[in-house]
Amino acid sequence: MLYALEMLGLVAFAASGSFAAVWARLDVFGVVVLGITTALGGGIIRDVLLGINPPTTLRTWPYLAVGATTALAVFAFHPVLAKLRKAVLLADAVGLGVFATSGTAIALNAGAPVYTACLVGMTTGIGGGALRDVLLREIPLVLRKEIYALAALAGAVLVGVGHLLRLPAAPVTVLAAAVVVTVRVLALWRKWNAPVARGTGAE
Amino acid sequence: MLYALEMLGLVAFAASGSFAAVWARLDVFGVVVLGITTALGGGIIRDVLLGINPPTTLRTWPYLAVGATTALAVFAFHPVLAKLRKAVLLADAVGLGVFATSGTAIALNAGAPVYTACLVGMTTGIGGGALRDVLLREIPLVLRKEIYALAALAGAVLVGVGHLLRLPAAPVTVLAAAVVVTVRVLALWRKWNAPVARGTGAE
Amino acid sequence: MLYALEMLGLVAFAASGSFAAVWARLDVFGVVVLGITTALGGGIIRDVLLGINPPTTLRTWPYLAVGATTALAVFAFHPVLAKLRKAVLLADAVGLGVFATSGTAIALNAGAPVYTACLVGMTTGIGGGALRDVLLREIPLVLRKEIYALAALAGAVLVGVGHLLRLPAAPVTVLAAAVVVTVRVLALWRKWNAPVARGTGAE
Repeated sequence: MLYALEMLGLVAFAASGSFAAVWARLDVFGVVVLGITTALGGGIIRDVLLGINPPTTLRTWPYLAVGATTALAVFAFHPVLAKLRKAVLLADAVGLGVFATSGTAIALNAGAPVYTACLVGMTTGIGGGALRDVLLREIPLVLRKEIYALAALAGAVLVGVGHLLRLPAAPVTVLAAAVVVTVRVLALWRKWNAPVARGTGAE
Repeated sequence: MLYALEMLGLVAFAASGSFAAVWARLDVFGVVVLGITTALGGGIIRDVLLGINPPTTLRTWPYLAVGATTALAVFAFHPVLAKLRKAVLLADAVGLGVFATSGTAIALNAGAPVYTACLVGMTTGIGGGALRDVLLREIPLVLRKEIYALAALAGAVLVGVGHLLRLPAAPVTVLAAAVVVTVRVLALWRKWNAPVARGTGAE
Repeated sequence: MLYALEMLGLVAFAASGSFAAVWARLDVFGVVVLGITTALGGGIIRDVLLGINPPTTLRTWPYLAVGATTALAVFAFHPVLAKLRKAVLLADAVGLGVFATSGTAIALNAGAPVYTACLVGMTTGIGGGALRDVLLREIPLVLRKEIYALAALAGAVLVGVGHLLRLPAAPVTVLAAAVVVTVRVLALWRKWNAPVARGTGAE
């Protein structure tokens, strides 16, 4: 179940990375490399923080295969899919939610204390998208926009609380991921923006 | 003592990251995320290099709490604090000095040889600020300006020499951190610039 | 033999990083820091992924010394060497080939399965140059240009196949590195470009 959820997040992040790469006019190889990096990046950071060596996503082929296939599909069907610009922000939200919550669950499984697991999970969720944006020379979404890190943290904390209450991990993780996606979509739709500091000329 | 020194560096780097974020017109969440990333980044890189999993700063709450509080304070009192532009470069210098020297001491405690400990310490000092600058799409301070990596290396080497001479670690680390800050402040004040290669049109 | 090959890659990547730094008008310290980061970056990423702590390149001095000496030589003789602009792309190709293949061999030695070793090797090859480009605010070569990641992957797979066929590691690694360099040079020379997605205005 956790595995199915991870694959969903993988497809979502691979799609968001590939679209960003197509819009940045990268060639097909660049699209695949960025799609894979976005999809696997968060999980690799998670495993490095937890001391899982070598990282899980580099040990079995489905992760890479799913990431590459998604990237090639985005490349091939880009003109059709491009009308769905909003779907790409949704894909990023799904990736964020899935990786933040499954990352927390995996960290708990690896024996990390709840506090640490929540932070590792949040980092897992944010990591892939941050890598994508830095590689394309953009200020990461997590720094710029509506309720992003906070949504990831909320999902991670829900999984952590579920663990403390000894609730079954799989349904709690799915529920928590859904909460993150809902918060992100509402934030995007309602344009929930946090205040900017006074005196910077940006109000 | 080492812990008190680390907290000082944490506040300093959190402040430098938060100010950079305010000036880049990020919202309050972006300011907190960048402040925390700058404050914790170097230590996380240090622990990943040393194989300390999960990283210390993700294991106990004071690190995150101090980083977040500093970032919120900078966000709230920015108009008052903004007159102190020079204080931000000073904060970066304090963070550099503290993390380069405490990073070396922590690496030595973890059993790393002196040569390795100095390099890990230097990387710890440089890491947080480099992350801050890359995330804001700026060429890192360490690549651009007056005596930066060299100051961090000098502090790290002082701690390493103190270790070889079996001097007590805490006072040596404090002294070495003070040396780094002094060198950086003098370099900034006196505009000690190193030469640029001939023939690049930048002389 | 693997060690001699690694030193060659180190000089090549240090040169490519230093040239990029000189062209970006960094001062002598910036040139050395970027040269060293480019030269050691891939290997550090490799060791972090494999759980080799602290990274090999931070444990013995020749790596750093060779990187720093190369960077200082580039800085000093830049006007003479600048005529050899193409040599810098060649240096990047040599670094890519050497680190992708030696990285795979080192991962196999560390007990990683063949599939994992190939991915770690490819990442080792790509890592140093990607760090160099991100620090200078450029979109990494691996995302932008002719057959780059694929060349690295081909070299890594050759080493992996050699391992499965129980061929002697050293000559296979050298041969595979030569294949990567040849592919990259041909791709640059013949301007082998991969297609860009339709409808992005970049055809």
